[in-house]
Amino acid sequence: MSAVKILVAQGGGPTAVINQSLVGVALEARRFASVGRVYGARHGVRGIVNEDFVDLTQETSHNLELVAATPGSALGSTRDKPDLKYCQQIFAVLRAHGIGHFFYIGGNDSSDTVRIVSEEAAKAGYPLRCVHIPKTIDNDLVANDHTPGFPSAARFVAQAFAGANLDNAALPGVYVAVVMGRHAGFLTAASALGRKFPDDGPHLVYLPERTFKIERFLADVKAASERFGRCVVAVSEGIHDASGQPILAQLAKQIEHDAHGNVQLSGSGALADLLCEEIKAKLGLKRVRGDTFGYLQRSFIGCVSDVDAREAREVGEKAVQFAMWSERNGSVAIKRTGSYATGYELVALDEVAGKTRVMEDAFIAASGTDITDEFRMYLRPLLGSGMPEAFRLRPAPVAKVLSAKA
Amino acid sequence: MSAVKILVAQGGGPTAVINQSLVGVALEARRFASVGRVYGARHGVRGIVNEDFVDLTQETSHNLELVAATPGSALGSTRDKPDLKYCQQIFAVLRAHGIGHFFYIGGNDSSDTVRIVSEEAAKAGYPLRCVHIPKTIDNDLVANDHTPGFPSAARFVAQAFAGANLDNAALPGVYVAVVMGRHAGFLTAASALGRKFPDDGPHLVYLPERTFKIERFLADVKAASERFGRCVVAVSEGIHDASGQPILAQLAKQIEHDAHGNVQLSGSGALADLLCEEIKAKLGLKRVRGDTFGYLQRSFIGCVSDVDAREAREVGEKAVQFAMWSERNGSVAIKRTGSYATGYELVALDEVAGKTRVMEDAFIAASGTDITDEFRMYLRPLLGSGMPEAFRLRPAPVAKVLSAKA
Repeated sequence: MSAVKILVAQGGGPTAVINQSLVGVALEARRFASVGRVYGARHGVRGIVNEDFVDLTQETSHNLELVAATPGSALGSTRDKPDLKYCQQIFAVLRAHGIGHFFYIGGNDSSDTVRIVSEEAAKAGYPLRCVHIPKTIDNDLVANDHTPGFPSAARFVAQAFAGANLDNAALPGVYVAVVMGRHAGFLTAASALGRKFPDDGPHLVYLPERTFKIERFLADVKAASERFGRCVVAVSEGIHDASGQPILAQLAKQIEHDAHGNVQLSGSGALADLLCEEIKAKLGLKRVRGDTFGYLQRSFIGCVSDVDAREAREVGEKAVQFAMWSERNGSVAIKRTGSYATGYELVALDEVAGKTRVMEDAFIAASGTDITDEFRMYLRPLLGSGMPEAFRLRPAPVAKVLSAKA
Repeated sequence: MSAVKILVAQGGGPTAVINQSLVGVALEARRFASVGRVYGARHGVRGIVNEDFVDLTQETSHNLELVAATPGSALGSTRDKPDLKYCQQIFAVLRAHGIGHFFYIGGNDSSDTVRIVSEEAAKAGYPLRCVHIPKTIDNDLVANDHTPGFPSAARFVAQAFAGANLDNAALPGVYVAVVMGRHAGFLTAASALGRKFPDDGPHLVYLPERTFKIERFLADVKAASERFGRCVVAVSEGIHDASGQPILAQLAKQIEHDAHGNVQLSGSGALADLLCEEIKAKLGLKRVRGDTFGYLQRSFIGCVSDVDAREAREVGEKAVQFAMWSERNGSVAIKRTGSYATGYELVALDEVAGKTRVMEDAFIAASGTDITDEFRMYLRPLLGSGMPEAFRLRPAPVAKVLSAKA
């Protein structure tokens, strides 16, 4: 039996821990005597059709460990979403190189690619083991308790709001921050984990799972501002009206002299700016500020959940083990056991491929502008250890002297 | 002799370590037997004129230590910039409460307030010791090697660019991120400390110390994109044309259907968006993304330079020592000794008050779009220990099979 060749690639948006999965595959594969070579494709599926491979077998285990702890996609990534023809090209290259196992780390589009490639191999009678390894900060893969990359991004968002809340308490006003997540609100909901004291922000959380009404939003902001003397708001970039039209598009049309034209949701500060303009114009509130967390929430170096890092490593390792010891293709899925432990299963590719998970109703408060304790209990263990915590001076007022005389 | 009463307050934008200075004052003052009470004013000078004081003497030292490690201004802050009349009100309240020492933690506006209040006390023959304690993420105080708050914000910016560079390398394109700093480019320049490998971004750094020309900017981005296959750009919010007009105002006028109206630099993503639109329109480049670091760079919880935390604590402690043991009013200044150690001096208030430091020419590369090694050596020790580092896979290309046949 000739030595097995393995190919691994990374697709879609990078995360803080996607390299853990890559290194999990590479190091675990190298432990098997039957594995001859571990190749990595540069820039995902595009690197496969271009035969742009690097030999990870020649990399030191020491450097692999350092790369594992580095955010971003060390092999490079791609936004290509292969159709059937593209997948046939992928398969042709895998066959030409005698690849026996194909591992693709990515979201649900990537799992669909793995599914089609595996079908092509089956049709051709070519023995190819295909495993999808989950990854997405959006946490929108079905069949998974959560997905690697999400906990670290959620940690960034929670820390960001914990800090923004302190800043807003020091200099009161309205603060609106826009968080990634076109269809699933998990990452925006993570903002609520930044709260500690009962009057901490975010005071309002807007998720794409609920219809966004601008009048209701303005009334919410007004009420919260009156109650707390300030207001911190978390908004998903994917908020939309009842017809599904993004609010960004609606506001951009509505407000004269301000149309960021297209409806590219990420990589622009338009939604936060437009919401702030609405608040200033309609509520007449002062000190209204908007931020868009943008690429920081998925790329910031130095904000990693240790639980996420560990699980991202393990899904890579388990993918190799499933491929070596099982006769099935599939997608590695994270299952929660107890409170809190993790198990891994290999689920069918078509169980994951092309499907999008959104936040369960039980995670969203009846108000539609907050999360439930159930979501808090779901997310807290994923954020990992060493979460920074905010502390306050306790009240000890001093009696007035001058005003008392007056 | 009756017991001394001390008043401390925090002004201007919060930082990651301003509470270290507050706690440095409170704990150091409590060590002096002559000190009876340590008061804190809520929301800076406004809290003084409103007699809104809390008694820090009643706070536990344990909780004070926890507050010290919390970002934001624990006493609350204010943007008020007192004029003479306002300062006279401040003095009236200090006298009514029998305050003997007044400590104000803030930037150069705050030092000017301290100066005027001290003059009012002198005129009235009232014995008041007034000390300004430096703080600003902009690093724009004269007479200081650097200011508390800046190193932690610089660390955030450096880490953000280190991560954004990895993200951009994985999915190549143009990435423009806007950094705080209206007049001084120190914080924007810190982006360059995120680089490790020779082709790492930011590839271009635009500082308010140099005139910004949009045509030159576009040519720079084009050249860098051709050279690196991608381009990461750091831009100060304060960039301006030769006449001093902010580029934000200029671009907003120039581009039809897009005018974020006012020229509020922070709390809006407009500058990044407008620069990205220029790049897309004029250079025809794809995947152009803009971020604005916004309030994250000064408020993010969990990104602190240990050197900054230590120094912020010490300027608070030294302020009390100078006040107790010296007959002078003044501003505590950080002096650099050796490579790298810190000393503290009490300098005259009018040496600091109302003056703005900008980046020295020796810190800016001749190109005007990069920093010098001198700046790197200046900033590196301030960022503190444990800076996360990026690692790469080393090249080990695999020979093509299919393409070789073709």
